[in-house]
Amino acid sequence: MAIEKVILAYSGGLDTSCILKWLLEKKYEVICVMADVGQQEDFEAARQKALKIGAQKVIVADVKQSFVEHYIWPAVQMGLIYEERYLLGTSLARPCISVALVKAAQEHGAKYLAHGATGKGNDQVRFELCAYALQPNLKIIAPWRDVEFCSRFQGRLDLIEYARESGIEVSAKPTAPWSTDANIMHISYESGVLEDPSHVAPSSLYELTVDPLTQAPQRTVRLTIYFERGLPTHVEDLASSRVYSTPLEILKFLNDLGGTYGIGRIDIVENRYVGLKSRGVYETPGGTILYTAHQDLEVFSLDREVLRTKQLLRDRMADYVYNGFWFSPEALYVRRCIELAQERVSGQVTVELAPGYCRAVARKAAAASGGLYNEQLVSMDVHGGYVPQDAGGFIAINAVRIREHVRAFGPYEVKESTSKETK
Amino acid sequence: MAIEKVILAYSGGLDTSCILKWLLEKKYEVICVMADVGQQEDFEAARQKALKIGAQKVIVADVKQSFVEHYIWPAVQMGLIYEERYLLGTSLARPCISVALVKAAQEHGAKYLAHGATGKGNDQVRFELCAYALQPNLKIIAPWRDVEFCSRFQGRLDLIEYARESGIEVSAKPTAPWSTDANIMHISYESGVLEDPSHVAPSSLYELTVDPLTQAPQRTVRLTIYFERGLPTHVEDLASSRVYSTPLEILKFLNDLGGTYGIGRIDIVENRYVGLKSRGVYETPGGTILYTAHQDLEVFSLDREVLRTKQLLRDRMADYVYNGFWFSPEALYVRRCIELAQERVSGQVTVELAPGYCRAVARKAAAASGGLYNEQLVSMDVHGGYVPQDAGGFIAINAVRIREHVRAFGPYEVKESTSKETK
Amino acid sequence: MAIEKVILAYSGGLDTSCILKWLLEKKYEVICVMADVGQQEDFEAARQKALKIGAQKVIVADVKQSFVEHYIWPAVQMGLIYEERYLLGTSLARPCISVALVKAAQEHGAKYLAHGATGKGNDQVRFELCAYALQPNLKIIAPWRDVEFCSRFQGRLDLIEYARESGIEVSAKPTAPWSTDANIMHISYESGVLEDPSHVAPSSLYELTVDPLTQAPQRTVRLTIYFERGLPTHVEDLASSRVYSTPLEILKFLNDLGGTYGIGRIDIVENRYVGLKSRGVYETPGGTILYTAHQDLEVFSLDREVLRTKQLLRDRMADYVYNGFWFSPEALYVRRCIELAQERVSGQVTVELAPGYCRAVARKAAAASGGLYNEQLVSMDVHGGYVPQDAGGFIAINAVRIREHVRAFGPYEVKESTSKETK
Amino acid sequence: MAIEKVILAYSGGLDTSCILKWLLEKKYEVICVMADVGQQEDFEAARQKALKIGAQKVIVADVKQSFVEHYIWPAVQMGLIYEERYLLGTSLARPCISVALVKAAQEHGAKYLAHGATGKGNDQVRFELCAYALQPNLKIIAPWRDVEFCSRFQGRLDLIEYARESGIEVSAKPTAPWSTDANIMHISYESGVLEDPSHVAPSSLYELTVDPLTQAPQRTVRLTIYFERGLPTHVEDLASSRVYSTPLEILKFLNDLGGTYGIGRIDIVENRYVGLKSRGVYETPGGTILYTAHQDLEVFSLDREVLRTKQLLRDRMADYVYNGFWFSPEALYVRRCIELAQERVSGQVTVELAPGYCRAVARKAAAASGGLYNEQLVSMDVHGGYVPQDAGGFIAINAVRIREHVRAFGPYEVKESTSKETK
Repeated sequence: MAIEKVILAYSGGLDTSCILKWLLEKKYEVICVMADVGQQEDFEAARQKALKIGAQKVIVADVKQSFVEHYIWPAVQMGLIYEERYLLGTSLARPCISVALVKAAQEHGAKYLAHGATGKGNDQVRFELCAYALQPNLKIIAPWRDVEFCSRFQGRLDLIEYARESGIEVSAKPTAPWSTDANIMHISYESGVLEDPSHVAPSSLYELTVDPLTQAPQRTVRLTIYFERGLPTHVEDLASSRVYSTPLEILKFLNDLGGTYGIGRIDIVENRYVGLKSRGVYETPGGTILYTAHQDLEVFSLDREVLRTKQLLRDRMADYVYNGFWFSPEALYVRRCIELAQERVSGQVTVELAPGYCRAVARKAAAASGGLYNEQLVSMDVHGGYVPQDAGGFIAINAVRIREHVRAFGPYEVKESTSKETK
Repeated sequence: MAIEKVILAYSGGLDTSCILKWLLEKKYEVICVMADVGQQEDFEAARQKALKIGAQKVIVADVKQSFVEHYIWPAVQMGLIYEERYLLGTSLARPCISVALVKAAQEHGAKYLAHGATGKGNDQVRFELCAYALQPNLKIIAPWRDVEFCSRFQGRLDLIEYARESGIEVSAKPTAPWSTDANIMHISYESGVLEDPSHVAPSSLYELTVDPLTQAPQRTVRLTIYFERGLPTHVEDLASSRVYSTPLEILKFLNDLGGTYGIGRIDIVENRYVGLKSRGVYETPGGTILYTAHQDLEVFSLDREVLRTKQLLRDRMADYVYNGFWFSPEALYVRRCIELAQERVSGQVTVELAPGYCRAVARKAAAASGGLYNEQLVSMDVHGGYVPQDAGGFIAINAVRIREHVRAFGPYEVKESTSKETK
Repeated sequence: MAIEKVILAYSGGLDTSCILKWLLEKKYEVICVMADVGQQEDFEAARQKALKIGAQKVIVADVKQSFVEHYIWPAVQMGLIYEERYLLGTSLARPCISVALVKAAQEHGAKYLAHGATGKGNDQVRFELCAYALQPNLKIIAPWRDVEFCSRFQGRLDLIEYARESGIEVSAKPTAPWSTDANIMHISYESGVLEDPSHVAPSSLYELTVDPLTQAPQRTVRLTIYFERGLPTHVEDLASSRVYSTPLEILKFLNDLGGTYGIGRIDIVENRYVGLKSRGVYETPGGTILYTAHQDLEVFSLDREVLRTKQLLRDRMADYVYNGFWFSPEALYVRRCIELAQERVSGQVTVELAPGYCRAVARKAAAASGGLYNEQLVSMDVHGGYVPQDAGGFIAINAVRIREHVRAFGPYEVKESTSKETK
Repeated sequence: MAIEKVILAYSGGLDTSCILKWLLEKKYEVICVMADVGQQEDFEAARQKALKIGAQKVIVADVKQSFVEHYIWPAVQMGLIYEERYLLGTSLARPCISVALVKAAQEHGAKYLAHGATGKGNDQVRFELCAYALQPNLKIIAPWRDVEFCSRFQGRLDLIEYARESGIEVSAKPTAPWSTDANIMHISYESGVLEDPSHVAPSSLYELTVDPLTQAPQRTVRLTIYFERGLPTHVEDLASSRVYSTPLEILKFLNDLGGTYGIGRIDIVENRYVGLKSRGVYETPGGTILYTAHQDLEVFSLDREVLRTKQLLRDRMADYVYNGFWFSPEALYVRRCIELAQERVSGQVTVELAPGYCRAVARKAAAASGGLYNEQLVSMDVHGGYVPQDAGGFIAINAVRIREHVRAFGPYEVKESTSKETK
């Protein structure tokens, strides 16, 4: 049998280094691909390490710009949030990384794709569904689901032992008692001591954001974020009047400033696609600020009923993205629908940052018309074309069903606690 | 024609005092009802004022306990939030107050109910739909929709003039350039200077919460909130070990503490049921803490798919409540459905309060089983009955549709920014 | 005061003739507009009648083609059906007619629009919402909601009396004990003897369709209907090989043939937008055939998850259309979303017509690829790229949540009737 | 290793007979279970066949009554229909059969469950998810997903060869060029010649229903079906006045009569849970009649908004049942929610049967009040408490958003075909 080429999603860490070695033992020719999505990593050191282990080639693909423009920005535009709290930092990176992996496979004629994602997690699903979508005949090697691999490496110690035997350098640095995933959007923490959800996460864990109480500036700061069709176009720091205009620039600025303010920390239990509940801690400083601003502008800009439908679609899309279906018929479709709704989401929002949180404090439509917000119409002082008398009929007709229920089935039940009446 | 009795929802303020006088001019016999839902008010002074103007009787109904137990607590249990931000403090009070009004009408044989809500707002809808539900043949007098009343009183000055002429005392205190609605759950601010949504609300506006930055304690504090079937049962202040057990006690404690921390401020534009967009500022300290804790426990406790359906129902219920349909066939139905889902939401959540915000940091199921969170199952170290190999098939079958799409319609479009590849 | 012009939606019948007269008495200048949406009507006689009564002008607008192309065809494309049974024949005609009315108002500088729709029905809502959308400052005159008009004309006899006095000719033909609304899509029947929902509608009522049992041909016939992006493009009568190609031609052919077969009768109780339940009988021969064919092609063509979202949107759209919101932000939005889904709905369906019903019996994709239906993939004889072994893992992972529920909360309840076991 | 016991879901056919033999070869001890869900089968002959092949024991479990009472009746009550056309006859039988299989496993201490469902189908999912739910540690043997089995038996001829070698009798009767699944609710047909969806199914295929045109009685017949809380309680044949009262009796009667009328045939392409599209032909005579009646009563009985939510839940439940999740947290939950809605669905519906179809023609509430249908309220002749004047305000307020859209974004686009205007 001819030697088969494998693309390995390589991180430079212990797991994928051992997997690299193991693949070589299995007589594969291995090309390592490292996607730079903004994680702090010594890519050059990792490259040397992989080459030393025996990788035929190591590709470092800087996909940060793609990640921000084609994954994070659309997520902001769509208002994606998983189970109402998680901004999908890892979920969004996976399809972007998969594109780089599949591209490498296509360029080098590799039939196999290997990754170090575990068998209990979401990432295996995300990588593989994306890979199948982009290159349907690609074959996956997932060592952590391989019976032989799993029985050989039953824990971290087995990997270290194997690394030592194989001359793979093992970091002297003691590993954190949790695992992390970092990119330009966020850092996530899970496993290890975090597996007990009743155990408060240690404060030393956070890397992207400072402790709001003790390390953040004790003053608020305001930013104005401009959107066109739901996409952030530029951000103005109102204190310095500096303006940030490209997606990458904007995100970096918001991450830095948000990080300084300790903004965007969450500690949650979430539902994984494979049926488990897992506990995760996330830091998403810039993403949190953008989400807050976009949400504010969207409710401000959209017709109420359009908003209702859009949010329904948004909830579906968030599940698709979390579950790994970025490239799927349903995600393509729903995304286009949401984009249609965003045609009206243009304007600016002023967000106030304070230690630990941010909130919208002012907003304005891009349209000279003021968009759907109508100061005359809502004013207590002028009519603005509204005829108050109409409301009586509106209420009466809405009451028809409510009264009919009483007629047909008797009075509504009213629960009351003992109340005191002063006479 | 015999003299007709009217129940007037009386507040002691300028508007309802003038309405009282106007109703008396119209030859109605007026019984004023003041529902004490926790607003700061000198009810005795208001009573004397109404009697002096000519009210036949003034009833002060203390419905705080009902409000907390039968409106706020269910809202916490259901996780109600309107347009993702507003915790419905005013919307929930309206049906509770309506019960008191209708009860007074029934006790005194009044055929009419009068209120001072404006013709552009939600409250007219809420009061009247509730009234029609509880007493279908009640007749509503809404002066602010009455053509004659509106043409006579075209602004605040006309009311003041009328009050002076009629010997109604007018508060010397200058009125705030916005209007407020307060109860034990929250204070809302709208109108006046707030009508311009691009204008930041003045910091002097907030009454329930302090400025987080300058007035809140500069340390965090943790509380453990216990829930049974989604309802808060008691709260433990972990610092003092004090425990609060009745709904009223819990809410007061959380409001006080949350207020001290400046928690629960929002500044939003929302969609009114009558079709307008309006800007509102809200302070909901205790409600925000309870919402945060319940949300955390719910995602932790419920099966993923049950949660999805429950949230869909929750979104519908939030609209019903906001729109005034508390007593309606649909609200009764959906509420019962949500309560079914809450059967499993029992346990405790530890919430950390910091200046300006709070967040869940730990949680635990009431069940000895640990509920649906399974530390063994999610662990990276033990299998816990999970067979990683199964995930491969899971992914492959999920990929069937994804690949079919490619077969039938060609490759998925991949957007890429220029990326640099280091070799 | 200058004489004001009114556009009257005129039908030639007793009601609108009396309304015409009444408007003239009120000193309005009245322009009658009759929209020809395909109803059987002697428009010339009606014109003469109106002119004789005193109409300044009578416009007969033949909007049949617009109705079919811009209302019925989109409804077929979207798969609109109200409460799962009603194909919206009347609801779709209303916005089309409204366009003609508003156009007349604009051309003749009329500020008023009058119609003869009742105060309990849906049509008043549909006409007026459309009118407000198209000409926001138009004023509506709805005599059946006018207190003076209603007290003067308390029943049909009052109208007849008024007609006699005013020299309006009254049809000698006895009126049917129900009311009807007819257009090129359907005829609806309601009111009168139909108001008792437990009373079977008389068989003499049906006008568009024959009695299937006694009057329809006692043989089946097959048609092939071709769709592009969800829109019918042509229909082939397989018996005669005749092909029908324009929307109007297709609908007329299907109505004729469907009518001959007694297809498309329903007898339902429906929920009106104003909160009432009403009983209606409908005949929609061609529409039923088109709905059947489109539904079949759609499930055949669309990815399962795209279909799920599309149907959710479809249900919303059906409510919008029924309730009169054809021209509304939400209908515009949702319609565009549905149209996106229809991009893949191209192909042909063979429908078999039998006395009283029709059903799809064969279908084929337009794409050479066969679209998403994959005979190889589903075949019991070849693999077609499907790996059966994967299904085991798929099931096992899907079972994770199911088993966790047992672990946490005990066994699922199983209900059993006494069963006999033969040994 | 001790000999392991296997429960085999046995049908008496070629496949499961060969599987039985194969399991015996693998040294399992095999107990065959045949669940009688109403299929036409010579169970005694099948038992003898299995015993002759070597089954240790053959259990024939008559679960017809359970099937009707605990699966079909709830499905009628919930109004379950998959992709708007399929009444789920096979999907509903699977959990019922699984209960019998798991019961046998528990009684005989078997750790294994084997079935003959294919790897591409839904039934494997349904059987296994139910089995895992009911006995989480049960192990599944699915020969059609077993690599060795599949490579040994690549087609029907291999099985016949194996049967001959093994002394398993092979039916002399030529097999139909499709496969069927039958039970008391329906017969399904798929595969073979049906795999080409553009090929019309042969008329000889249908077993439960006659050809409507040539074999059904050429007269209509009416039945009144009574429901309590959405469940059919009895059926009266209006011609004979005979009444059928138990679920089994009712279903048999409706199947017989419906079959005589050729009612309940559909020919569809559906979306399987494993991601394929497949073509199926189904006959569900009694189920179709019950669905029709229940649907009519439900829209008649339920408040409009309750109905909307119920239908959303129904659509979810239909997917759960089709996909095999009968025993799952989500199905338990959603089913209870739907049952709550059915509390009001009591009354009677008269259904007219005609050759090939049936339809509701009259309905009546059980409540003396008439339930929510209010003849007075809807009447054109009396007010019934409805104030027509209110509708004007109702419409005007509903128009606020519609007009605001025009103000902010300009006129709605109106598409028009050339229309002729007669002057």
